[in-house]
Amino acid sequence: MQRAWIISIGTELALGQSLDTNSGWLAEQLAGLGIRAQRHVTVADDLPAIVDALRAAAAGADVVLVSGGLGPTDDDLTRTAMAQAAGVALDLHEPSVAHLRAYFASRGRDLPASNLVQARLPRGARVLENTCGTAPGMCMVVGDTPMYVMPGVPFEMKVMFAEAVAPELAATAGGAVLRSRRLHSFGLGESDLGERIADLMVRGRNPEVGTSAALGVITIRINAQADDPATADAMLDETEAAVRQRLGTVVFGADGCTLAAAVGRELEQRGQTLATAESCTGGLIGELLTAVPGSSAYYVGGAVAYSNELKERLLDVPAALIEEHGAVSEPVAVAMARGACANFDSAYAISVTGVAGPGGGSEEKPVGLVCIGLATPHEVTAKAYRFGSDSPRDVIRHRAAHLGLNSLRRAVLAT
Amino acid sequence: MQRAWIISIGTELALGQSLDTNSGWLAEQLAGLGIRAQRHVTVADDLPAIVDALRAAAAGADVVLVSGGLGPTDDDLTRTAMAQAAGVALDLHEPSVAHLRAYFASRGRDLPASNLVQARLPRGARVLENTCGTAPGMCMVVGDTPMYVMPGVPFEMKVMFAEAVAPELAATAGGAVLRSRRLHSFGLGESDLGERIADLMVRGRNPEVGTSAALGVITIRINAQADDPATADAMLDETEAAVRQRLGTVVFGADGCTLAAAVGRELEQRGQTLATAESCTGGLIGELLTAVPGSSAYYVGGAVAYSNELKERLLDVPAALIEEHGAVSEPVAVAMARGACANFDSAYAISVTGVAGPGGGSEEKPVGLVCIGLATPHEVTAKAYRFGSDSPRDVIRHRAAHLGLNSLRRAVLAT
Repeated sequence: MQRAWIISIGTELALGQSLDTNSGWLAEQLAGLGIRAQRHVTVADDLPAIVDALRAAAAGADVVLVSGGLGPTDDDLTRTAMAQAAGVALDLHEPSVAHLRAYFASRGRDLPASNLVQARLPRGARVLENTCGTAPGMCMVVGDTPMYVMPGVPFEMKVMFAEAVAPELAATAGGAVLRSRRLHSFGLGESDLGERIADLMVRGRNPEVGTSAALGVITIRINAQADDPATADAMLDETEAAVRQRLGTVVFGADGCTLAAAVGRELEQRGQTLATAESCTGGLIGELLTAVPGSSAYYVGGAVAYSNELKERLLDVPAALIEEHGAVSEPVAVAMARGACANFDSAYAISVTGVAGPGGGSEEKPVGLVCIGLATPHEVTAKAYRFGSDSPRDVIRHRAAHLGLNSLRRAVLAT
Repeated sequence: MQRAWIISIGTELALGQSLDTNSGWLAEQLAGLGIRAQRHVTVADDLPAIVDALRAAAAGADVVLVSGGLGPTDDDLTRTAMAQAAGVALDLHEPSVAHLRAYFASRGRDLPASNLVQARLPRGARVLENTCGTAPGMCMVVGDTPMYVMPGVPFEMKVMFAEAVAPELAATAGGAVLRSRRLHSFGLGESDLGERIADLMVRGRNPEVGTSAALGVITIRINAQADDPATADAMLDETEAAVRQRLGTVVFGADGCTLAAAVGRELEQRGQTLATAESCTGGLIGELLTAVPGSSAYYVGGAVAYSNELKERLLDVPAALIEEHGAVSEPVAVAMARGACANFDSAYAISVTGVAGPGGGSEEKPVGLVCIGLATPHEVTAKAYRFGSDSPRDVIRHRAAHLGLNSLRRAVLAT
């Protein structure tokens, strides 16, 4: 199995001011191609340090992936470092100049002089076209080791990797593969879940099984090593089936599937529609729902009823109800969900009202109290949840959004 | 100024199955102590690879921080690797055996035989006590370079760093400090912006100035090195003033400030209110606004008008207008913003309607076309923007949300 090193370039990464998410993503992609990421190196925008890291990688790896430092400013040094590491000159690459000119022209602008530096290329390098931005990537050999250089902007890097790098790597990677699958669950704590699949999580098992938790979603990772993709996939299928058999509908989807996508799929299959009525989540549930392409098939929209006035005006929540119970209460959550269904003409509605903090809490209604309402064709209910009052605002909001989506999912599955 | 390397050990990190957050956190802590993190290395649970990484770090750095690989299982190799890198034997460390025994006894359990390996220590190493878990850390010199080895579990690592490592590093760092500030801007491309501050971005300048881009926001990072914090802060102030003088209101905030927070501050100062009318962003603008604590002072809420029916019902967009121009059009964006102001009783409103893709595009209305409406107390306007039609849905939505918030910010600033 080929061994890869992954190099990320950027002072903001080295100083810890930005989190490097590119390296992990690339490592996962490599695994899918049967290449094992053995080392990641993050290095500041410092020419000798970058050259040193590139040379070490050339000596230690079979293939090297580099991201970052391809921008137009003076702290973008990757082109120069690649040339120095390989001991070659930098030339102006005319087709890249033309590409840059076309990129800016399509946005109605002239090519800024400073962007010209992005068309400079170490002699012997081959351009990898950037279909999403200005920085072309490159492929060149340093020592005996092929290196693929991509932009640091994650989405440009991902597109370039998929279009230009992965096909080449797939053609050269031989034999053994590491294939992975993730199953996502909601509604069971990590240790309870772990007990149900303890025998599958034993160390040394192939496929190996591990869990991780984020914002209430527990993800089960399955990694299978085999001599060929078909065998690895069959092993993944078998372990996935075992996990699903133990966990049932707690598992809501695999790999890229989100809770919003899972609930959307169920609604779409049933030809049902959904509206939202959000207070403390402020539009987050709508955002999660509409992040799924095609969500207009079942999601009609909703109200961000942040003020009490809008709760009354858009959702017909009686002012007296807010007066009596407070805006954060189960009766108000019920009224919001009922109002959303009625006014927005949907079969289902989710409502959320809560105290996301850090201010605004009281003894009776502390930070972390969230009431989630659910309207179905049969009934309207609400339930109060308590998150830790020292939880960050962002965590309370995301967990509330996930709880709302999962309550809906369970209600739709029960029909 | 001392240069540090940070090494993270773990196959799950190298394979990209877990995100390494330790390295960035340690880099930030080091900066506060006047030590510059120059390189991060992540390496799998592979003995020769770990030894190689440790030796390279001993040769390249003034001080090395290592985390991970101190657990009780067969794939925890850091103790052995440290001994090999330093060319010394591993001994059983009796006080650590006693500590482990006490740790398990306090939980009503006997010391498992497998945990005994955690009490083995390279000869010449000094133990760093783990007050939160079973894995003791260590400090030892490899070559001439001091190395601090900590557990990989983030919260155990953080406590050990704060209690046992930071005080020692502070005593040897010799006073010099690295202080940082970030300024965030919107509305000027990275290269145009770079040209305006090119002299400040010259390599070798102190403070050093660099830029990075994410979803339309260009961040200017300023890092100052000085003998003491007061001097570094004064240098940051001076460079910040120079950057702001060149860029004017393109700069919207510093450090943790978001576009939504910046516009909220301006609204709050003026006692003005805001409503939103979102179609393709589906609640994202509301979510960004309400992520800011205290946003209820100026944000009343709004409509997620994802379907045409809700555009008509909640925002009084005439059906004939949608019929004539299509839902994604400047006239509809104008009507949405006007309807939001009128129906939600706010001084300002932002509206967004667009084709976020990947489906739903046409020749006339391609994926990436977004119309942003803005209602102020004086006028209602809209403008069409074109993002690349192969941009991911998520990128189009975030850039559209940022554009809307920035248009509003500029309108409010102009009052």
